[in-house]
Amino acid sequence: MKLSARNILPGRVIAVTKGETTAHVRIEIAPGLVVTASITNEAVDDLALAVGDRASAVIKASDVMIGK
Amino acid sequence: MKLSARNILPGRVIAVTKGETTAHVRIEIAPGLVVTASITNEAVDDLALAVGDRASAVIKASDVMIGK
Amino acid sequence: MKLSARNILPGRVIAVTKGETTAHVRIEIAPGLVVTASITNEAVDDLALAVGDRASAVIKASDVMIGK
Amino acid sequence: MKLSARNILPGRVIAVTKGETTAHVRIEIAPGLVVTASITNEAVDDLALAVGDRASAVIKASDVMIGK
Amino acid sequence: MKLSARNILPGRVIAVTKGETTAHVRIEIAPGLVVTASITNEAVDDLALAVGDRASAVIKASDVMIGK
Amino acid sequence: MKLSARNILPGRVIAVTKGETTAHVRIEIAPGLVVTASITNEAVDDLALAVGDRASAVIKASDVMIGK
Repeated sequence: MKLSARNILPGRVIAVTKGETTAHVRIEIAPGLVVTASITNEAVDDLALAVGDRASAVIKASDVMIGK
Repeated sequence: MKLSARNILPGRVIAVTKGETTAHVRIEIAPGLVVTASITNEAVDDLALAVGDRASAVIKASDVMIGK
Repeated sequence: MKLSARNILPGRVIAVTKGETTAHVRIEIAPGLVVTASITNEAVDDLALAVGDRASAVIKASDVMIGK
Repeated sequence: MKLSARNILPGRVIAVTKGETTAHVRIEIAPGLVVTASITNEAVDDLALAVGDRASAVIKASDVMIGK
Repeated sequence: MKLSARNILPGRVIAVTKGETTAHVRIEIAPGLVVTASITNEAVDDLALAVGDRASAVIKASDVMIGK
Repeated sequence: MKLSARNILPGRVIAVTKGETTAHVRIEIAPGLVVTASITNEAVDDLALAVGDRASAVIKASDVMIGK
């Protein structure tokens, strides 16, 4: 499936932290450049996300702000 | 002002495209790694965003999905 | 690529309306049940979205509200 | 109150799972078609959401992506 | 319909600007305190939004960041 | 850093509630007018958010709906 999301940043999972319903996953997309995602625990299980996995951060363009 | 947003990715503006109300801004955050933001024209004017500017893509963790 | 997004609703494209930078795409996910997406024109071109295409509405759980 | 949100999908609550601050609510909007919402526990209490309730999934068009 | 959204800020419409597909609506929620919404033109028409109308800005808690 | 976000509403923190991964922060932006934000615990720690702090609610225009 190809996505309309303009931002698909491939990298490697460096941390997975599960709470009671919500998990935080950190993906290194370039050396020292890390993106944090807040997703459901269910999604973590469904994708069997683990440290070391190749994975992408997927972000809709309308969810990106600019700071200058 | 320090932000709660977990993802603040510094880079350089490589494109600014304005529509009637909504603009698309592209920021290169690492060599060849580009993030597209869809923001208001008003914000583009307010920040005086132009190609070549140093700027950051700012993304809330809850707006990041994972693809694997 | 498998996605963390909890909501992937398959259907058929019934309308594509492009503005200057932003397009609206309507997908029928069940008889009479239509979901509207606001995406970039670029994404419409990239996916070559056209009326009649099979496509899915993809929605992160944290973007869904409840009304009762 | 009438909403600007383009997507108001009526259905029935089939699951409510509360974490410490965030809850997941599942609504069946057509036979076998389920939408998952991640909302605050406070909202669950405020709406007294329970399995079997009639409720709608409310989604802003700019939060819908397309996959094809 | 009661909403799960934690933030429903009542006020008065002070500006409506339509683009080709996307409109910007400004609501004054307290004297001098204005919230800008980017919504579809279709929603503007559907709600018949006009300057002077009483209307509310509706925002999901997960879409609010904090700056300090 | 100046932000593209159209809505930066200054106020005072009146509550901080941490869950296992996700926290809720309430900011009073005008007398009796409160905005609730759902952010990561990590952000709460990073900003050292506490009741009584001056802080702003930051909201992208595309995340604001209108109710009328």
